Amino acid sequence: MDSIKEMLLYQCFTLTVRNVETANPQRATGAPGFAMILYQTRGDMEMASRFKDSSGEDIYHFFFVSSFSEYTVVDIAHLVKISPEIPVDKAALLSCCVSTGVGAAWKVANVEEGSTVAIFGLGAVGLAVAEGARLRGAAKIIGVDLNPEKFEIGKRFGITDFVNPALSEEKKISQVIKEMTEGGVDYSFECIGLTSLMEEAFNSTRTGSGKTVILGMEKHMLPISLGSHDLLRGRTVCGTLFGGLKPKLDIPILVDSYLKKELNLDGFVTHELSFEEINKALDLLVKGETIRCVLWMDK
Amino acid sequence: MDSIKEMLLYQCFTLTVRNVETANPQRATGAPGFAMILYQTRGDMEMASRFKDSSGEDIYHFFFVSSFSEYTVVDIAHLVKISPEIPVDKAALLSCCVSTGVGAAWKVANVEEGSTVAIFGLGAVGLAVAEGARLRGAAKIIGVDLNPEKFEIGKRFGITDFVNPALSEEKKISQVIKEMTEGGVDYSFECIGLTSLMEEAFNSTRTGSGKTVILGMEKHMLPISLGSHDLLRGRTVCGTLFGGLKPKLDIPILVDSYLKKELNLDGFVTHELSFEEINKALDLLVKGETIRCVLWMDK
Repeated sequence: MDSIKEMLLYQCFTLTVRNVETANPQRATGAPGFAMILYQTRGDMEMASRFKDSSGEDIYHFFFVSSFSEYTVVDIAHLVKISPEIPVDKAALLSCCVSTGVGAAWKVANVEEGSTVAIFGLGAVGLAVAEGARLRGAAKIIGVDLNPEKFEIGKRFGITDFVNPALSEEKKISQVIKEMTEGGVDYSFECIGLTSLMEEAFNSTRTGSGKTVILGMEKHMLPISLGSHDLLRGRTVCGTLFGGLKPKLDIPILVDSYLKKELNLDGFVTHELSFEEINKALDLLVKGETIRCVLWMDK
Repeated sequence: MDSIKEMLLYQCFTLTVRNVETANPQRATGAPGFAMILYQTRGDMEMASRFKDSSGEDIYHFFFVSSFSEYTVVDIAHLVKISPEIPVDKAALLSCCVSTGVGAAWKVANVEEGSTVAIFGLGAVGLAVAEGARLRGAAKIIGVDLNPEKFEIGKRFGITDFVNPALSEEKKISQVIKEMTEGGVDYSFECIGLTSLMEEAFNSTRTGSGKTVILGMEKHMLPISLGSHDLLRGRTVCGTLFGGLKPKLDIPILVDSYLKKELNLDGFVTHELSFEEINKALDLLVKGETIRCVLWMDK
């Protein structure tokens, strides 16, 4: 793939503006397309598969992309043309995850210089939010995670302060953060998918202008409960899939930022394994021992 | 008051940027100040009263303003200088209520031309949201109210469609609105203060870009419950006091809009009574028979 002149990135999120009638196309994001495929991950093309395996069974496109295939047919909506100068293992980070976090900081929250940020969950998405906030010049970026090692890792991506919920049991995390920021952060991000933390993230923001961005996917689809007066006093909550980015427009911007040595993608790749070692890669992920593990088809 | 050259409007909301450390002063609204005075409506000046009545008891500034007084001392933060060309009875509408609704449409939601809007509750605030959306060129403005007479009144302010929840008991209001708008409105506004309607307003917006603005004050401070996946698919919820306006900057803009015959303020004044008839005015308000009743001190 890196030998061809025009590099293409498979993208599981699709713009699908074609399906979305909206007054302002600027406001349409990848979310509508994803909302549809979220519960349809086998990814039929045009609601039917065009491929069969040797026994005649249908083969589907996982998330419309099937990125584990060496050769595939993908709808043009799921392809983004990017600069061939970026190595494939770094480009792979932008098809999801890192782009989601950076996009959430840049496009959804619109973090500005000197602002304060709290990030709940320092997995790759949370660290990418930190990276986005760092590049925007946030003054204080508070990471919240049960794993104390995440603070050291987080510093690479701009985390300036750390809260370990296990060490502050007598106080709510939101109370700790409010004390650290004289009333609350400007922006909070939930990158885990637990309603209790979504609510804490909301309660960590300042009155009058606080904004909470939900990136975590709640496994059981539970509702979140927000104080109506806390909202009324000028807070905002929004959710985002793929960080509000339009892949075809915004992924090339992230690629350029990496090539200009601004966006730190290298720091995310903590492990590289061959495709045969995929189960080991998943084990590392489950144990929280890797940020991103790149699988090579040919190594 | 209308005889002096510089007209001043008493404003119960205060900018209080002086008390709010924030990275971006553009994002600071009147809300922090109000959050403080919300539970302190007796309105001490500098936490003490400087006035006493004839028996020596403290006299407080109601909401920092005491607009029922013919003469008063008000903190400069609560005064806005406006054009003397606007009649006082119309200017009075801008110290709260109409400005809140128009501001919510203009500054919080940022309603754009051709968009779709749903407004829950067609009191003066809800009608002011409609007026704001009408001036922005919204294509469809759906009013939701139990009182069918509000549709006729609402037409003056741009309401194009009407939903009476009492007549669609077998369907949720959000379902009716989604059917009317092919998937949901771009913007919904809750102007009553009931959590059930805040949730319906949220569920009435479209996936990917829907935005809900809460203006109603929930009497019992109950929390609202939002589907975490509904949020995640790109919806936004925010609350606002005074429509995100900065009084000193934005009220003069509303005054100018009225003087240019754009902003319809006249339509809000359905009754005019003398100050002695204040109880009658309140009765009309409770019965939903008046939009805004102006009390004259000298008529």
